[in-house]
Amino acid sequence: MGDELTFIASLRNLATHKGARGLNDDCAVLEVGGETLVLTHDSIAEGVHFLPGQDPADVAWRLVATNISDLAAKGAEPVGVLLGFTLGTEETDARFLVGLEEALTHYRAPLLGGDTIATKAPPTHGLTAIGRATYTPVPSRAGARVGDGLWLTGPLGAAMLGLEALQAGADSTLSEAYRRPRALLAEGQALAPLVTAMMDVSDGLLLDATRMAQASGVCLAIDSAAVPIATPETRRAEALRWGDDYQLLFTLPASAEPPIPAHRIGTVRPSGPAPLLLDGAPPPQATPLGYRH
Amino acid sequence: MGDELTFIASLRNLATHKGARGLNDDCAVLEVGGETLVLTHDSIAEGVHFLPGQDPADVAWRLVATNISDLAAKGAEPVGVLLGFTLGTEETDARFLVGLEEALTHYRAPLLGGDTIATKAPPTHGLTAIGRATYTPVPSRAGARVGDGLWLTGPLGAAMLGLEALQAGADSTLSEAYRRPRALLAEGQALAPLVTAMMDVSDGLLLDATRMAQASGVCLAIDSAAVPIATPETRRAEALRWGDDYQLLFTLPASAEPPIPAHRIGTVRPSGPAPLLLDGAPPPQATPLGYRH
Repeated sequence: MGDELTFIASLRNLATHKGARGLNDDCAVLEVGGETLVLTHDSIAEGVHFLPGQDPADVAWRLVATNISDLAAKGAEPVGVLLGFTLGTEETDARFLVGLEEALTHYRAPLLGGDTIATKAPPTHGLTAIGRATYTPVPSRAGARVGDGLWLTGPLGAAMLGLEALQAGADSTLSEAYRRPRALLAEGQALAPLVTAMMDVSDGLLLDATRMAQASGVCLAIDSAAVPIATPETRRAEALRWGDDYQLLFTLPASAEPPIPAHRIGTVRPSGPAPLLLDGAPPPQATPLGYRH
Repeated sequence: MGDELTFIASLRNLATHKGARGLNDDCAVLEVGGETLVLTHDSIAEGVHFLPGQDPADVAWRLVATNISDLAAKGAEPVGVLLGFTLGTEETDARFLVGLEEALTHYRAPLLGGDTIATKAPPTHGLTAIGRATYTPVPSRAGARVGDGLWLTGPLGAAMLGLEALQAGADSTLSEAYRRPRALLAEGQALAPLVTAMMDVSDGLLLDATRMAQASGVCLAIDSAAVPIATPETRRAEALRWGDDYQLLFTLPASAEPPIPAHRIGTVRPSGPAPLLLDGAPPPQATPLGYRH
């Protein structure tokens, strides 16, 4: 496998070099006829982002949710999606359609177009989501300022427990957090006018917080005990590194209070040797901070 | 493999059912703040749309060109693209970037965003292209009217010869038509105000003309000898079925002349038993009309 970070850096450089607004965080921001559009593209691959044999309806839901979550972090409302679908069997395709319709109905995101391909390889599906900004300037992950509070919308680790329940063959309600993640559109729209920086936690809190710190040129100091978790206390360290919960991570001026339920988990400090401090020290290097894919 | 046509029909139904404008031909048409955007998404897979071992720079070019060609058929000008990229080796990723930059520079389409994934499967890459309509209503494939002339911008079969040259290891200039197809943006923009229907011929003339006939509810009668080909005469039947040339197929009122060089290859007739007549008869069923992928 090539070096993802090098490639992404080259892509960013290419985008910047050509004068694009974009590769702004996970989304592109585009001014069109007085409106501000937010565009994002995420792909998911069997064996990487979903399990072989997993219900394709859940795969479709996840594909939609992961893209809509990127819109949520921008305070955008969905305009529609384009699908790039790898065909499977008649049965699995039909299940995918069921989940796709459920997710698109839930998020009020019409299917605008797309294409299908037939390969013999394990399937990869892509989705482009187009949103309309409800507030400008659109929040980015680069705006955190020294002295801001660091906040999180809700508990981490629910998707981790859900995956374990799915793998154990448990009742499907126990795996719902993994199978049917919720993108926080309403929360993102409520927060957009107030935050200095915002992003979704799709790859794990510590990894995504590191990205926010680096983009903002600051240090994020997290109080691990203040982070809400959905797991037993013994698994706190894992919950802080597990992705797929799609909670929103954001910064607010010190005096501000969020307009929705949220948890203050830390403080923005001046940049130093480490982009991230966990209880006053850089997180242990031995453990990955999160999920790179 | 599932039934692509059934799945696409279900997707179209889903899109229509939910009140979207889109799944309008290969593109979605979206009104945003007084502007008309055209969006398209096409994926390409190794072993299906490109050869294992093919220069990734050419693969990147093809990925861009196939999407930009969809914009061309709508008379749109590129606004930008989002990339969904499957990582390979450091070397192949670097070559992909070279071709990507060449193509995006050529088509003046900035890279707005995207994502990368790492899988062990043969790579699939997706691209979403966003364009701005230069003329509204945006041409569709559904507007051909009885009595219209049927036209084609240029010769077919060049990509077929190019692929053969590539497979034979011939000098790279001989395979250029296959490796570096040209999307006809300027031609599409010149034609958009005049045509009654337009689409690109990416899957073979006979297959794509059948699609136009079915979308328009008419019969297209093609005079095979009038179709310009880039191959020896002995291979005319193949050239009419081979895709990847990205010529534009369009209909004009009988009295109209195109503002660019083009070839009149047939006439629009009332719908009958067959959507397509080739020299007065339906094309032989034994031979596929084109390339379904």
